[in-house]
Amino acid sequence: MDIPDNTLTIETSLEDEGGGNTIVRRQVKGPPRRWKSWLVGRPLATADAPHQTIGKAVGLAVFASDALSSTAYASQEILVILATAGTVAFGYAFPISIAIVALLAVVTISYEQTIHAYPDGGGAYIVARDNLGEMAAQVAGAALLTDYILTVSVSVSSGVAQLVSAFPELRDLRVPVAVVMVLLIMLINLRGVKESGATFAIPTYFFLGTMFITVGVAMFRYASGTLGHVVDPPHLEIATTQGITLFLLLHAFSSGTTALTGVEAISNGITAFREPRSRSAGITLVWMSVILGILFLGITFLAGAIHAIPSEGETVISQFARTAYGGRGALYLATIAATTIILIMAANTAYADFPRLSALVAADGFLPRQLTYRGSRLVFSRGIMALAGIASLLIIAFHASVTALIPLYAIGVFMSFTLSQWGMARRWLKIGRLAPRQEVHERGSTLRYESGWRLKMAINGFGAVCTAIVMVMFAVTKFHDGAWVIVLVIPVLVLLFYGIHRHYRSIARELSLERYGAPPRIARHRVILPVSSVHRGTLAALQYARTLTDDVTAVHVSIDDADAAKVRRKWDAWGEGVRLVILESPYRLLHEPLLEYIEEISAARQPNDKLTIVVPQFVPARWWHNLLHTQTALMLRLALLFQPGIVITDVPYQIDESETP
Amino acid sequence: MDIPDNTLTIETSLEDEGGGNTIVRRQVKGPPRRWKSWLVGRPLATADAPHQTIGKAVGLAVFASDALSSTAYASQEILVILATAGTVAFGYAFPISIAIVALLAVVTISYEQTIHAYPDGGGAYIVARDNLGEMAAQVAGAALLTDYILTVSVSVSSGVAQLVSAFPELRDLRVPVAVVMVLLIMLINLRGVKESGATFAIPTYFFLGTMFITVGVAMFRYASGTLGHVVDPPHLEIATTQGITLFLLLHAFSSGTTALTGVEAISNGITAFREPRSRSAGITLVWMSVILGILFLGITFLAGAIHAIPSEGETVISQFARTAYGGRGALYLATIAATTIILIMAANTAYADFPRLSALVAADGFLPRQLTYRGSRLVFSRGIMALAGIASLLIIAFHASVTALIPLYAIGVFMSFTLSQWGMARRWLKIGRLAPRQEVHERGSTLRYESGWRLKMAINGFGAVCTAIVMVMFAVTKFHDGAWVIVLVIPVLVLLFYGIHRHYRSIARELSLERYGAPPRIARHRVILPVSSVHRGTLAALQYARTLTDDVTAVHVSIDDADAAKVRRKWDAWGEGVRLVILESPYRLLHEPLLEYIEEISAARQPNDKLTIVVPQFVPARWWHNLLHTQTALMLRLALLFQPGIVITDVPYQIDESETP
Repeated sequence: MDIPDNTLTIETSLEDEGGGNTIVRRQVKGPPRRWKSWLVGRPLATADAPHQTIGKAVGLAVFASDALSSTAYASQEILVILATAGTVAFGYAFPISIAIVALLAVVTISYEQTIHAYPDGGGAYIVARDNLGEMAAQVAGAALLTDYILTVSVSVSSGVAQLVSAFPELRDLRVPVAVVMVLLIMLINLRGVKESGATFAIPTYFFLGTMFITVGVAMFRYASGTLGHVVDPPHLEIATTQGITLFLLLHAFSSGTTALTGVEAISNGITAFREPRSRSAGITLVWMSVILGILFLGITFLAGAIHAIPSEGETVISQFARTAYGGRGALYLATIAATTIILIMAANTAYADFPRLSALVAADGFLPRQLTYRGSRLVFSRGIMALAGIASLLIIAFHASVTALIPLYAIGVFMSFTLSQWGMARRWLKIGRLAPRQEVHERGSTLRYESGWRLKMAINGFGAVCTAIVMVMFAVTKFHDGAWVIVLVIPVLVLLFYGIHRHYRSIARELSLERYGAPPRIARHRVILPVSSVHRGTLAALQYARTLTDDVTAVHVSIDDADAAKVRRKWDAWGEGVRLVILESPYRLLHEPLLEYIEEISAARQPNDKLTIVVPQFVPARWWHNLLHTQTALMLRLALLFQPGIVITDVPYQIDESETP
Repeated sequence: MDIPDNTLTIETSLEDEGGGNTIVRRQVKGPPRRWKSWLVGRPLATADAPHQTIGKAVGLAVFASDALSSTAYASQEILVILATAGTVAFGYAFPISIAIVALLAVVTISYEQTIHAYPDGGGAYIVARDNLGEMAAQVAGAALLTDYILTVSVSVSSGVAQLVSAFPELRDLRVPVAVVMVLLIMLINLRGVKESGATFAIPTYFFLGTMFITVGVAMFRYASGTLGHVVDPPHLEIATTQGITLFLLLHAFSSGTTALTGVEAISNGITAFREPRSRSAGITLVWMSVILGILFLGITFLAGAIHAIPSEGETVISQFARTAYGGRGALYLATIAATTIILIMAANTAYADFPRLSALVAADGFLPRQLTYRGSRLVFSRGIMALAGIASLLIIAFHASVTALIPLYAIGVFMSFTLSQWGMARRWLKIGRLAPRQEVHERGSTLRYESGWRLKMAINGFGAVCTAIVMVMFAVTKFHDGAWVIVLVIPVLVLLFYGIHRHYRSIARELSLERYGAPPRIARHRVILPVSSVHRGTLAALQYARTLTDDVTAVHVSIDDADAAKVRRKWDAWGEGVRLVILESPYRLLHEPLLEYIEEISAARQPNDKLTIVVPQFVPARWWHNLLHTQTALMLRLALLFQPGIVITDVPYQIDESETP
């Protein structure tokens, strides 16, 4: 018995052996146009999902902007650390960057293998879940989600900082400008993957274009011996405090590894790619890493060649660009503008990945289920809005200060690198133990024997060890600057995830129909009808109550004898012989005596008795008219919600004030 | 058939001829102790009301503090105006104050007559309602309520201003200190008339004591020729700009009439007095006016005698006290402290009257009915809280500035004086037209012929003309300083009152059982049961739905084919043969297809068909767990509330997470 597919507005009635009949109805007309459509575009049908995927070119723009933006600062990060041993240490920058690119290669190969192994999304979360267990998966999830939030806060804050250095009058508006920017990127992402991809491809390629031209021009001039050194280099503000030690070189190395942040992005976003997904995503990853490697090596090498000086006053990129172009001309300005834009664009990668990852975690029951719901434009709109909300709060809390936010950053990414690669290494070990041609299906992937598993395991294992070292160095060197926040937040998040999971599991168990007999038959049905005064609405409710059962009791709480006498008189005339209980309330309490009475009746019930409270509720023509009336129904609902076996029914009586003379 | 009174916990079942049976139950045990009891005292039974009245001594403290506090500034107000014609004009202050006291006498006689005519409360509102019509009553109500709010704002702000001049470090905390004070007075008033009266009697009598001693000492020294002039009087800051004209004298007169504000308080609060109410209230009024007149005349006379100078730097009271005591000794300080306290205490009179008046207006249906509800301590607690809330907002909006608030003040009081006296004049005219021994019962009073009606009408009419002139002078001279706000607010309030009244009237008409046949019989009862998934909660709701009617339709909105197939499979097993409709939602909308379906069914109904939506709702153990679930029931309720004839029933299914392993 399958549900008929692709049938339009057909009402199909299928009788089945159980005697039940099921009608399936498909809605064809689109949902009504609303203000939301104007904001994010017309709703997309679920069937449109395959058309909402993106190709490699747009994919590179969406998922690589985070990684590529790091070329704007990674070289400088190395030089800043080396500077503490004097300019003579700058010579180590290029060898260090070669080591970083080697690590990049290891991580890339690792993720390339992951992408092919996990075609439905192979981020650290899934790899850890399938190979290292639930706890490791939740740690990876918490680490990555935290890092995506930080990516948005940091990249938008740094973009705004660049803007402020250009327009100092914006200084006091930093925080609101950053928040507006976060909301703007949110809005574009709510329009869907395809549309936001197209919007954001332009600036990404603009950055790549200008960067390659700059590096190319500089290389050519270096080869032809006309490049020279930086004119008027900034003063080196960093004091020489130590010699060249292994620790210093490792520190410089770990600082330079910020170039790797964002490499994981594609593995989390495979489902956004057009079929064949894994192939598209894999090729995009290789392209991204190659571009990243070339630009990073080129910039580091050339920065050394021109004797660039790391400084708070002028970025290395700026020194490099004006040396390459021999001044601050149009090409120089284009390079600086492109760098500013790509820094903000890095946030977009987080917008692409955070909602997908949180939907994965939510689908496993560790985050609120609502995050798995795809919005009108087929994106996980609640995840997008959650990301924007939390990132905005962070920006407000940290006053959009990059310096304050940056120490929190990157630890999460390296934790996820480590877990992902360690998980892959475990996977190779499992594969090595398989018999040839044996297949094992896991939740996210299928395991088949491969002959080269030892080498591949070694690569992933080595990568895991390297990224683990970098992560620890990050945490240690930046602990006091704020990294402790992350060291605290990730375990707290994991605890929260498990709390949510426990709740969902116990709900599922409590509601499960397994080992469940028939639901108890309702033996007796009593109805209580609270009556504040006798009017048409009361009589409508009385009518309704009498269709439910013969056992109806009307209850009036009396705080005024004259009113009670009136209710009694009217009830004698209109109450259809139904029993009326008057509860005198000497302390003028309205709800308490009623609740007490209901609880008394409820306590005297047999197990299968059902008690229904029928509340007459007149509905005024305008909502604010409710301010002029006491909200008994609402109050009763809140008070009785936790009483088992009590049902509350509002019988609304609409009042049309316009018709009265 | 009377309701048995004074019977305790007796369940009396009275069969009457209509066949209905009514049970009356009286609750004897007091309500449970809660945090509220700790804050405002244990609840009082309605039967305690007669014991919650106050005697004359406490009544003078509660209702006279507003009027008596004006002696602290009224003399100065006259001098300030006269100063524009030079110090030579100060000689007119005493004659003007005699005129004001004459007006006070007229107003007092008028209100004395009112209090005896209206023993159940005889404020301007009731007098206007019975004699000038509904519109005049609402104007009086709006004017008085506005003025009470202003009394609280102004008096607390002026008290805080005095505090700030003593402790300048509180300057920036002015607004929060004032708001806290408003809330503190609110809290004491929530404890009930008797208790708050006792609390506030001490400072009032302290003020009266110090004031009489000061005036007495000064008089004695004046008589014995040892009083002398003010030592180091403040510099007269006011420029001499005009001669002594009639307009100037009238202006000074109207400014001095602020001494009269608060005289109306007792007439609004008669019900707070112990029996015989009218007599107690009347005697208290006479005492208050006599004290007010003596102090006002005495201070004005002595201020002239010592050549006091009106100044922003030092109040006339301060100059007068230090001259009387020959320096700034303990008695001087006591006088200043008492003055500060009485200024704040004036707010208490408003707390006594505003809730009573608003309950009167609400009982007539011109304000939300909730204001007629007496709280646990037998006071109109909602009115007290409303007053505190609005006055606090006003203090925040005006930054607790007395200068900004004062021009709004007093117009309302004089408007109510005018309406009240004019109403009394009309009442005398009606009485004059009665035959001897004829009695006419009006809503608030009983009319009997009196022989002296012409004189009494003349007194009231003369008083009305005088207070009307003062009111117009107030409005004109202070129009630009802020009086325009009141000129605008009072009509707006009156419109609002009439809007509320129209709503209550139309509701009453729509719900009325007069000319109402029987309510329509319910011919067919259909039930729709929204089902998101099939679990124990769903089955409980299904059970319930089937007790209501045989015509049950389960509806599932499908946004995922696999989920829908699962629901269908489970429904076949557990659905007891009930029809299931699956609504496919290609745009992943959850509520819209369901609402559309319900509306379709609803539109096809016969007039007497009833449609009930039974919503299964599982109730998690902790409220915040609701964040982890979608709130379908709530959403349906909001969306369907305005659809006539649709009843919504939640069938709660409680989940006890603690019991699960």
